[in-house]
Amino acid sequence: MAEAGFLAKLLAAARRNQSLLCVGLDPDPDRLPANLRGRPDGVARFVQGIVAATADLVCAFKPNLAFYEALGAEGWALLRAVVAAVPPDLPVIADAKRGDVASTSAAYARALFDWLGVDAVTVSPYLGRDALAPFLARADRGVLVLCKTSNPGSGDLQDLTVETAAGRRPLWEHVARQVVAWNAAGNCGLVVGATYPDQLARVRQLAPELPILVPGVGAQAGDLAAAVRNGVDARGERAIINVARAVLYASDGPDWAEAARRAAERYRTEINRERPGAR
Amino acid sequence: MAEAGFLAKLLAAARRNQSLLCVGLDPDPDRLPANLRGRPDGVARFVQGIVAATADLVCAFKPNLAFYEALGAEGWALLRAVVAAVPPDLPVIADAKRGDVASTSAAYARALFDWLGVDAVTVSPYLGRDALAPFLARADRGVLVLCKTSNPGSGDLQDLTVETAAGRRPLWEHVARQVVAWNAAGNCGLVVGATYPDQLARVRQLAPELPILVPGVGAQAGDLAAAVRNGVDARGERAIINVARAVLYASDGPDWAEAARRAAERYRTEINRERPGAR
Repeated sequence: MAEAGFLAKLLAAARRNQSLLCVGLDPDPDRLPANLRGRPDGVARFVQGIVAATADLVCAFKPNLAFYEALGAEGWALLRAVVAAVPPDLPVIADAKRGDVASTSAAYARALFDWLGVDAVTVSPYLGRDALAPFLARADRGVLVLCKTSNPGSGDLQDLTVETAAGRRPLWEHVARQVVAWNAAGNCGLVVGATYPDQLARVRQLAPELPILVPGVGAQAGDLAAAVRNGVDARGERAIINVARAVLYASDGPDWAEAARRAAERYRTEINRERPGAR
Repeated sequence: MAEAGFLAKLLAAARRNQSLLCVGLDPDPDRLPANLRGRPDGVARFVQGIVAATADLVCAFKPNLAFYEALGAEGWALLRAVVAAVPPDLPVIADAKRGDVASTSAAYARALFDWLGVDAVTVSPYLGRDALAPFLARADRGVLVLCKTSNPGSGDLQDLTVETAAGRRPLWEHVARQVVAWNAAGNCGLVVGATYPDQLARVRQLAPELPILVPGVGAQAGDLAAAVRNGVDARGERAIINVARAVLYASDGPDWAEAARRAAERYRTEINRERPGAR
């Protein structure tokens, strides 16, 4: 089956750049390189410098909206400029974790897909399928549903055993199965933290065709090798291994862009070493 | 116990205005009054006109961020202006449904509480307690956790029976109990849709002290009388009955502000009729 929209763009970028690495574009004004810190255009120059330094080493970029919202209205303008600065053949995933009733989700979909222009968005499953319908209806864009998140407390809800018509299972596993069923337009994916490699392996088994976004490598200390081995599909693809801080802040000296590039190269190499089908 | 922060402000506003009505400030450019539609400042004039027309009839205002994000970077600037235009003794609830890992939630808390300046925020429980900690730590601000949402498909996840150490129960009930346990700073609340009056009664029983935000009256056709009777606490307080479209779009003629005021007055009266302790 020919892949379209977000998934096609993702696969093409991953093959072209021989990479499953996704760089998280999460700027923290307090951690900017010394020569940019405190400058009015510091964050913009930093993020655009990271994009330029790593664009041929990644399969996607993932800005988390919180870091732009924390900058106020200017942050939203900056985010749009960042999205526009990414080469058009590289997908951009808005890490937004949105989820609201349908009429409101429709407004979020317009904001993210149309005004901002991203290729995919992360969403929360808590409100159920009808709340995600306005995202799911956009067959040309990806919808990555939170399943088992990378944080230490993700088990509070996600690990609860739920009773379903088909049997008892952890909530995260139920979500993975539901999303496979919601994938009529072929634009769904899942989010599973690198900090939970066993759950990642199970999700890959349940959803052999879906792209899986895997955050939590690097600063959050997820096991990179296990994340890759357990996250990829049968061809060694469709895992999106996100690293943010360990690339962004590789150096705060004048060599920050080169240091970020070297860090991204190391991650790409380490990831490819674990991929069964790496070319 | 003396109430502080968001809850104190909410209770004072509700008593002063003799109202449990919350007006949802969710502007849709296509539904603006005819004399504002298409004008560059149309949305700003509309929302600020609604605030001015209804501020003495409500206990709170609740902008949903999606409708501002759909306007792009200007929408964020507008939202900040709207929050600033609300009289300081009326609480503003940012309906954001945010929820991310802790370092990211901290950025959202800065964006919403500090840059935007709202009194409370709605959040999703899917990531667990540690993900909400940066919000919970702000004792002066309210944290309203999604429990049983108003949409038709909310049962997909929320109605699943979960197994806990204390017994089997629906996920939404488990969330309500958890939030009561997370309320160390006294700043928690819950969100339960008016479309589920039985679940609302049960949540009120489990959380007798918590403010409960009740959306879904009006356009979503929740039963107003049941929402009030089942949502209020023993004194007839601490329910926040949200109405958006039925107030905002009461008229699209030149009398839109007066019509919104009359609609808000009607809702306030109908709500008070059902309150056991209404003054």
